Amino acid sequence: MQDTMCLEKQPLSQEMLEKMNAYWRAANYLSAGQLYLLDNPMLREPLTMDHIKKKIVGHWGTVPGQNFIYVHCNRAIKRYDLDMILLSGPGHGGNFLIANTYLEGSYSEVYPNISQDEDGMKKMFKQFSFPCGVPSHCAPETPGSINEGGELGYSIAHAFGAVFDNPDLIATAIVGDGEAETGPLATSWQSNKFLNPITDGAVLPILHLNGYKISNPTIFSRIPHDEIESFFKGCGWKPYFVEGDDPMTMHKKMAETMDTVIEEIKAIQKNARENNNPERPVWPMIVLRTPKGWTGPKVVDGLQIEGSFRAHQVPLTMESPEHLDLLKEWLESYHAEELFDEHGRLIPELAELAPKGDARLGANPHANGGLLLKDLRLPDFREYGIDVDPGKTKAQDMIELGGYIRDIFKLNKENKNFRIFGPDESMSNRLYHVFEEENRDWNAELLDTDDCLARNGRIMDGMLSEHMCEGWLEGYLLTGRHGFFASYEAFIRIVDSMAAQHAKWLKVCNQLSWRQPIASLNFILTSNVWQQDHNGFTHQDPGFLDHIANKKADVVRMYLPPDANCLLSCFDHCIKSKNYVNAIVASKHPSCQWLSMEQAVKHCTQGIGIWEWASNDYGQEPDIVMASCGDTPTLEVMAAVTILRDEMPDLKIRVVNVVDLFKMQSDHKHPHGLSDNEYDAIFTKDKPVIFAFHGYPTLIHELTFERNNHNMSVHGYLEEGTITTPFDMRVQNQIDRFNLVKDAIMHLPQLGNKGSFLIQKMNNKLVEHRQYIAEYGQDLEEIRNWEWHTPEK
Amino acid sequence: MQDTMCLEKQPLSQEMLEKMNAYWRAANYLSAGQLYLLDNPMLREPLTMDHIKKKIVGHWGTVPGQNFIYVHCNRAIKRYDLDMILLSGPGHGGNFLIANTYLEGSYSEVYPNISQDEDGMKKMFKQFSFPCGVPSHCAPETPGSINEGGELGYSIAHAFGAVFDNPDLIATAIVGDGEAETGPLATSWQSNKFLNPITDGAVLPILHLNGYKISNPTIFSRIPHDEIESFFKGCGWKPYFVEGDDPMTMHKKMAETMDTVIEEIKAIQKNARENNNPERPVWPMIVLRTPKGWTGPKVVDGLQIEGSFRAHQVPLTMESPEHLDLLKEWLESYHAEELFDEHGRLIPELAELAPKGDARLGANPHANGGLLLKDLRLPDFREYGIDVDPGKTKAQDMIELGGYIRDIFKLNKENKNFRIFGPDESMSNRLYHVFEEENRDWNAELLDTDDCLARNGRIMDGMLSEHMCEGWLEGYLLTGRHGFFASYEAFIRIVDSMAAQHAKWLKVCNQLSWRQPIASLNFILTSNVWQQDHNGFTHQDPGFLDHIANKKADVVRMYLPPDANCLLSCFDHCIKSKNYVNAIVASKHPSCQWLSMEQAVKHCTQGIGIWEWASNDYGQEPDIVMASCGDTPTLEVMAAVTILRDEMPDLKIRVVNVVDLFKMQSDHKHPHGLSDNEYDAIFTKDKPVIFAFHGYPTLIHELTFERNNHNMSVHGYLEEGTITTPFDMRVQNQIDRFNLVKDAIMHLPQLGNKGSFLIQKMNNKLVEHRQYIAEYGQDLEEIRNWEWHTPEK
Ligand SMILES: Cc1ncc(C[n+]2csc(CCOP(=O)(O)OP(=O)(O)O)c2C)c(N)n1
Ligand SMILES: Cc1ncc(C[n+]2csc(CCOP(=O)(O)OP(=O)(O)O)c2C)c(N)n1
Ligand SMILES: [Mg+2]
Ligand SMILES: [Mg+2]
Repeated sequence: MQDTMCLEKQPLSQEMLEKMNAYWRAANYLSAGQLYLLDNPMLREPLTMDHIKKKIVGHWGTVPGQNFIYVHCNRAIKRYDLDMILLSGPGHGGNFLIANTYLEGSYSEVYPNISQDEDGMKKMFKQFSFPCGVPSHCAPETPGSINEGGELGYSIAHAFGAVFDNPDLIATAIVGDGEAETGPLATSWQSNKFLNPITDGAVLPILHLNGYKISNPTIFSRIPHDEIESFFKGCGWKPYFVEGDDPMTMHKKMAETMDTVIEEIKAIQKNARENNNPERPVWPMIVLRTPKGWTGPKVVDGLQIEGSFRAHQVPLTMESPEHLDLLKEWLESYHAEELFDEHGRLIPELAELAPKGDARLGANPHANGGLLLKDLRLPDFREYGIDVDPGKTKAQDMIELGGYIRDIFKLNKENKNFRIFGPDESMSNRLYHVFEEENRDWNAELLDTDDCLARNGRIMDGMLSEHMCEGWLEGYLLTGRHGFFASYEAFIRIVDSMAAQHAKWLKVCNQLSWRQPIASLNFILTSNVWQQDHNGFTHQDPGFLDHIANKKADVVRMYLPPDANCLLSCFDHCIKSKNYVNAIVASKHPSCQWLSMEQAVKHCTQGIGIWEWASNDYGQEPDIVMASCGDTPTLEVMAAVTILRDEMPDLKIRVVNVVDLFKMQSDHKHPHGLSDNEYDAIFTKDKPVIFAFHGYPTLIHELTFERNNHNMSVHGYLEEGTITTPFDMRVQNQIDRFNLVKDAIMHLPQLGNKGSFLIQKMNNKLVEHRQYIAEYGQDLEEIRNWEWHTPEK
Repeated sequence: MQDTMCLEKQPLSQEMLEKMNAYWRAANYLSAGQLYLLDNPMLREPLTMDHIKKKIVGHWGTVPGQNFIYVHCNRAIKRYDLDMILLSGPGHGGNFLIANTYLEGSYSEVYPNISQDEDGMKKMFKQFSFPCGVPSHCAPETPGSINEGGELGYSIAHAFGAVFDNPDLIATAIVGDGEAETGPLATSWQSNKFLNPITDGAVLPILHLNGYKISNPTIFSRIPHDEIESFFKGCGWKPYFVEGDDPMTMHKKMAETMDTVIEEIKAIQKNARENNNPERPVWPMIVLRTPKGWTGPKVVDGLQIEGSFRAHQVPLTMESPEHLDLLKEWLESYHAEELFDEHGRLIPELAELAPKGDARLGANPHANGGLLLKDLRLPDFREYGIDVDPGKTKAQDMIELGGYIRDIFKLNKENKNFRIFGPDESMSNRLYHVFEEENRDWNAELLDTDDCLARNGRIMDGMLSEHMCEGWLEGYLLTGRHGFFASYEAFIRIVDSMAAQHAKWLKVCNQLSWRQPIASLNFILTSNVWQQDHNGFTHQDPGFLDHIANKKADVVRMYLPPDANCLLSCFDHCIKSKNYVNAIVASKHPSCQWLSMEQAVKHCTQGIGIWEWASNDYGQEPDIVMASCGDTPTLEVMAAVTILRDEMPDLKIRVVNVVDLFKMQSDHKHPHGLSDNEYDAIFTKDKPVIFAFHGYPTLIHELTFERNNHNMSVHGYLEEGTITTPFDMRVQNQIDRFNLVKDAIMHLPQLGNKGSFLIQKMNNKLVEHRQYIAEYGQDLEEIRNWEWHTPEK
């Protein structure tokens, strides 16, 4: 297309504004049609109740404003040849996005059945928010979306994630004024302190001040103008206001403002890039104040609808016949017959307003990130393995992992498609080695004394917000890049709901052939429940695993590597994987190492295994199975085994370790699950199993509910203990070696009285322990310096 | 004490400032001592390694600033006779609060063993962050605290909760500049839109701008002054800045600023109260910029400590002998010998600086809310019961509940100790009747068209933030009042971590005799997973129950009333209870009613029961048990039972309903649990149990893992379905009547071929269902209008 032919590149004309208004009417018509119409999509016949859906479900209030923004984005994209994606914060009102992607053609490309003609329009209307149809939100099913909404609050965080390392991308984020009241959204305005104007793209927030949420007004719409302005200035933004309700006046204001802000963004980027000046600029944003339910029914049954909270969902319910007239009037007010031709196709004068090809918001590949995904270049993790004398060597698993990750940074320097995320905890979580190669990202003021802070760091740990870590990372992954989130295990619960929503997103994507797989969402949960020496009860919570376990089996994975070599192997596996939510629980404290790299690879690949070198039931049925999952439980089980083998040399003990937690579940329920036969081969059908687990014991109960062998005693976290020694935490939760030995003996009735003395010995040890720590504040020497051994022959 | 004698009431003098500085030194000394000293508390002997704790765990950086604030609060309390509580946002650095409550005497009153003498000081030092001692955070163990911190972000929300309906209370909230970056904290500044200057008290936020968090600088400390100022103005606050590092200058500035802000608060209140003008004022706040680790070690091993992130935890580790000298120098710099007498008691000139009695921050009864708790006046819930023709009557449980709650408002008008909380959802959750009596609280701009908004509303649903609902409610409860939080079931997951922290708080309080019981934290989870017609997959998540189930058994309770009368009974029970976290899952849609009020009371009191009127195994062993828990599962089980009884009249069916979910767990694990005998009497030892459960099936698995009868097939939410009909949601998750019947038959091998035709019939029904909804968008007539019946004889 010739630039000179393109209306958008001309000075703003009345003709252009009128076309835009017509396009907007078309979008509004299609959005309303989706809510109501089963048939008669172009209203060619007189509207009757038979044309109306029996159950009308969906949202209207937010729609016209979002349609308005869409048409203005279209113009800006064409005028400035922009690479832009659009995030709809509210998410509900997904009919707006379907309408617009349908108008521009991107919808029908993905769903040919919803063709750009009257038949397709009818199907589009019917399917919306309808059984066997499509969701009412900006769900994965909707092309162009990377932010479903539903759970409100993440639009700005997702938008920032999308533009990191995408210098030419603009992510326009429509923020609901209700959404803006959520915690995650409120802090996300600060994300501009982490954006580099040279190497990152731009986020253009549009606060959608339609005045209401479900049934209350919004705070931002009910504070003085100068407070709104101060607020955004205080957050480092330059707000532009577009306010009003007369469509044509508003089109003009909005178009002019879009030009201003896009030019400002371009100027900021040009200046930064030409002068190699990464200092934080003040980025522009828009505050768009329009009536909720704009252009919809004004008054229904004597109550104001347009411009009120009553416009939020369905502005007109269809139980009374007068409402049919109101609906007709409303739908006819858009004059669809002027906008669509006799085949129900958008007329060419309007169709040409949409950008073409990948420039369309519904077709931008960044919003289907798998299309852009490049594999990471990965070092061979085996080379980072450490030499191990089992149960004697000590190492800090997270430190070892840091070395491997440092080299991922090195290898992907050019591709710029890997970042790590954390709430001010990368050091505390001991990823020390990554700082040898990379800095933390920081675009607020820098001081000479600052440590590893830089304008272009790839370690995103400068903001104390789990919500931002998660939201940025999700945005980064959804646009086709790689990363992980390392968190204190307890505080990952802050983003329970975000992780669940992402898992849901992935589950749906798995059913959509046109959505290409994206890199997995990887969590490293460290500073875990057993490693909270500086902190207390508030910092103990292993329940994220339980949470993840409830999500759809084809999406979630959990790994609990017992040592550094296993951690390396698990991490390598996760960072290569696609479309999963992976949770890895890792140790950061100096702790016992068990497996050589070669053994670790075998063990982790199988996910569960008998540690034959620690067992003494070779070739026989064991008397008891001592099993563990997690670093600390493994240590205690191994220590318990040394005691049992020393004290009861005839006892046949099998030692089992679980890395891949879903191995415990049946293969009917999870693709990683062992079959019942495989399971019985490891755990036996009926021998006692003493199982020491990292988290809540109930998680093992639920995973193994349907297994044959219920002769299992699970030890885990019991919500006991606060600041105390590491070993005492275990004692208080009865996952320590002494309690494990006691429990083992109590599960071996055949020992009869032989076990009693060992039980007494264990009880004495527990008293000794308690007295010692109360006096010295640290664990007994024999605990601190414990080493694995097998009984002398 | 005579006012004229009180130094605080005189114009600020150098003498006063010097005394305050000395008091501050004492607090700093005691805080550092707690970190390091096992013995030699007054440094009367030369300091040796033997006097030092083996493992030094705790925080220093935040402490001196918080001590500084404390001494200035003390002065303000005395000068203006204030009723004040103090919330420490960061929470870590709890040694500051112990030091100060010890100095003022409130600590020793609660813990006489930690006496105000050298022996007590030694014990106080040793116990801190020590095994068998006290936590390092502002935990429940610390008098004066209602905000433990640990998980950062809730100080302002808690503070607002505390001052609602406490017109004479000032809650001073120290906000960490790192904490300020969290989502919950960021949005909590907006809470001033919900404060009534006549009937509520005041919150005085002090942003503690010490520049750093764990190892990064903070955003607020690295943006220009005018951005900070704009930010707070934009949030509706008037910020006062106190910045510097010279102690004496800073004392002067701070004292003057405290006077200014307290006088401003008083003036605002006076004006509002005298003129009966509840309009939102601009409340003052303080931005206090001081060095992190102020007065601590300056440089250690060549690295800057004071004024840097390195001061965060332990500023001096004790592995090298030079560090012993540094520690000595540091501790001696406070000149404890000038501050404490020969018995180790604070000298009288300083002791007199502390407020007296309940005015002390460590003794203010609002911070031990149970002391102030008044029982609610409750109507007789039985009077709100509805007449029920079982399985024929329909009602909306939440609407019925609303009537009862409306009257709670009525009865407690004078006591002003009941509020309800929700994120813009009270209408959506159908608490319609409450609006007959009460309004929503709103102190931003009001319009004529506004609906049920008022300056003094007690329905706190004007802010779209689950974090605020939860935080405000917690603050309200912790200060001795009552309330509940009604939420969409899915989005309650947003506050998973907050609910867990509160449960942990309660667990610890249960062990502290001086902490009086407070009203329970009540959740009503409605708009539940089975009732999401306007929304989709994102709005489905019944996992909060799983989350709660992992908390300490003596603190948590879960109720799933099957109908309105049961909901009334459960709610009544919960709202009267103390020290629990109660989760009630409730239905808001028109749905079948089962029990008369009389039956409901019996059923809910027992928590589980056989519905003999629906069963046909009277006096015999049943062939099968059909059990349910939750409104929708109960409907489907009852419908399945009608099919089974019609089609297989000889089958002996027992119908069981569970309201109190913990009945399923063993009485060894939960106080509500049934004994194994009781359980077997209901579920039999081995007969098949088809169990339809509201949530994830695994929760039933984990609760019943240790029961005898594992012949149980649990149906529940399987993460399937998005927008569709209500019945189709059940079909997709196989919890519908047809799938239940199929499963029942497959669990009755004795039926042999007799069952095959019924299975075929059910399969046909499922196809018919699917075809119907795909065409009409609503459920089959026979589903919509289903009614319970027993077979005709
Ligand atoms: C976190 C969260 N809490 C509650 C809801 C329930 N809810 C759905 S829509 C809505 C109001 C949204 O208001 P706003 O963001 O202003 O969107 P708009 O006015 O554009 O519809 C609420 C509270 C939700 N979706 N997410
Ligand atoms: C929600 C949450 N995320 C992470 C942490 C880990 N953490 C502990 S202290 C801290 C820094 C706190 O900084 P700030 O609020 O400025 O407190 P101060 O400087 O006064 O210590 C962090 C990130 C936490 N406690 N809570
Ligand atoms: Mg809105
Ligand atoms: Mg700080």
